[in-house]
Amino acid sequence: MTRGTIYGVGLGPGCQDLMSVRADRLIRQASHVAYFRKRGRTGHARSIVEGLLSDTVIELPMEYPLTTEIPVEDPRYNECLAKFYGECVAQLSEIAGAGRDPVVLCEGDPFFYGSFMHLYRRLWGRVPVSVVPGITGMSAAWTATGQPMTWGDDVMTVLMGTLPEETLAKRIAETDALVVMKIGRHLDKLRRALARAGREDEAWLIEYAAMPEERVMPFREAGDSAPYFSILLIHGNGRRP
Amino acid sequence: MTRGTIYGVGLGPGCQDLMSVRADRLIRQASHVAYFRKRGRTGHARSIVEGLLSDTVIELPMEYPLTTEIPVEDPRYNECLAKFYGECVAQLSEIAGAGRDPVVLCEGDPFFYGSFMHLYRRLWGRVPVSVVPGITGMSAAWTATGQPMTWGDDVMTVLMGTLPEETLAKRIAETDALVVMKIGRHLDKLRRALARAGREDEAWLIEYAAMPEERVMPFREAGDSAPYFSILLIHGNGRRP
Ligand SMILES: C[S@@+](CC[C@H](N)C(=O)[O-])C[C@H]1O[C@@H](n2cnc3c(N)ncnc32)[C@H](O)[C@@H]1O
Ligand SMILES: C[S@@+](CC[C@H](N)C(=O)[O-])C[C@H]1O[C@@H](n2cnc3c(N)ncnc32)[C@H](O)[C@@H]1O
Repeated sequence: MTRGTIYGVGLGPGCQDLMSVRADRLIRQASHVAYFRKRGRTGHARSIVEGLLSDTVIELPMEYPLTTEIPVEDPRYNECLAKFYGECVAQLSEIAGAGRDPVVLCEGDPFFYGSFMHLYRRLWGRVPVSVVPGITGMSAAWTATGQPMTWGDDVMTVLMGTLPEETLAKRIAETDALVVMKIGRHLDKLRRALARAGREDEAWLIEYAAMPEERVMPFREAGDSAPYFSILLIHGNGRRP
Repeated sequence: MTRGTIYGVGLGPGCQDLMSVRADRLIRQASHVAYFRKRGRTGHARSIVEGLLSDTVIELPMEYPLTTEIPVEDPRYNECLAKFYGECVAQLSEIAGAGRDPVVLCEGDPFFYGSFMHLYRRLWGRVPVSVVPGITGMSAAWTATGQPMTWGDDVMTVLMGTLPEETLAKRIAETDALVVMKIGRHLDKLRRALARAGREDEAWLIEYAAMPEERVMPFREAGDSAPYFSILLIHGNGRRP
């Protein structure tokens, strides 16, 4: 019996028809579909593929362990996650070992700040894995603003809202085009960093890009918090004939 | 008669099944398909959709004017391009005015350093335009390396090979993850910039990502030149449980 392949499939930003033709085909044909979710939730990746799965599909929700009580700095936090990823990998490898091709659903592009990467590096060299790139959340975000993102030789910088204010301010000041992801409860810090860089008036906030709840607003009209699916951006302004 | 919509459709990196389901549908149904190309060439965007177009489609190749004799600094260079873009826009608007929905084929993601942006900003506010995001060339490039691109709070910087060596060296030294596009005849300058930043051994060169001629190599094994479709990258190395 030949060993199966584990597929890490990019779903794109969250709208079914922004999935690639290859992703769409793999998902419809899948015998096993795995996805991360929080305990008691549907899981966002799972909800994107609603209606596409075959009647006989076997679903493998991978439920994050409850780490809310453990501070991120605590070594037990990483231990807890590492154990969880290890278990996911064991389950997927077993399915592939039995000659099936499990599909892991990944939001956006799997290799771009994706959680699948934690499985991938554990599988690498042991089980065949095939990764299908996807449209990133940031592409959907700048498309939603109706303004092109980068021109000519613009420099584009991608930052995470989790970075220290100092770092954010410096990086924001020094780039042409800017993308900030993982904003959530870092919104206030981000507002201060933008102010220090003198760029508040250039920034846009996009919530749920390409999803039914999509919202686009100038960053100065943003409230006190932003949902998990939100992206801040500043458009580039390079050469243009 | 209702006015039509002009579609700017991202084709993704160059492999038909990495097109989005929406792009695939729009292209198959299109009555008019427009694309940029050099005089006497097929046009890369056009070649990606080979076999998908309907029998009755009307093709509108938009042929770049010959600017090779005019230096980029010369104001006539921009005038020449601006006139060309103006003509393209007039033609597309006429079709939309007649109630049809012309589809403009765009490599990768239309709003990410794309040539369609030059048409878009001229159409904006005058004719309805709908943009379909696509998988970028860089996503295909990092997928081709088989290594995840960005982890945790890695900073990612996107640079164009057309930037001065000094700028390249400084930016390359200061980022975690790096993408350099538009390399072509700037390869030597880029090699010097990487050396100044002390990062030659971390860099990968990907030619024709996701196309049949795809090649991945450590940058130090690159030759003296790189094709138009090539991307240099350095993977990020952030936190990982
Ligand atoms: C763990 S990262 C995953 C990124 C994903 N792999 C991608 O390619 O976009 C999660 C962050 O991506 C951003 N994001 C992804 N998709 C989004 C969307 N459709 N709308 C807004 N933000 C999105 C948010 O900033 C979110 O905090
Ligand atoms: C004018 S930019 C267009 C970028 C495109 N809009 C995108 O989203 O990728 C052209 C540059 O993109 C890069 N590129 C685009 N697709 C590529 C691919 N499939 N393989 C390698 N490089 C690619 C090359 O660096 C090329 O010089």
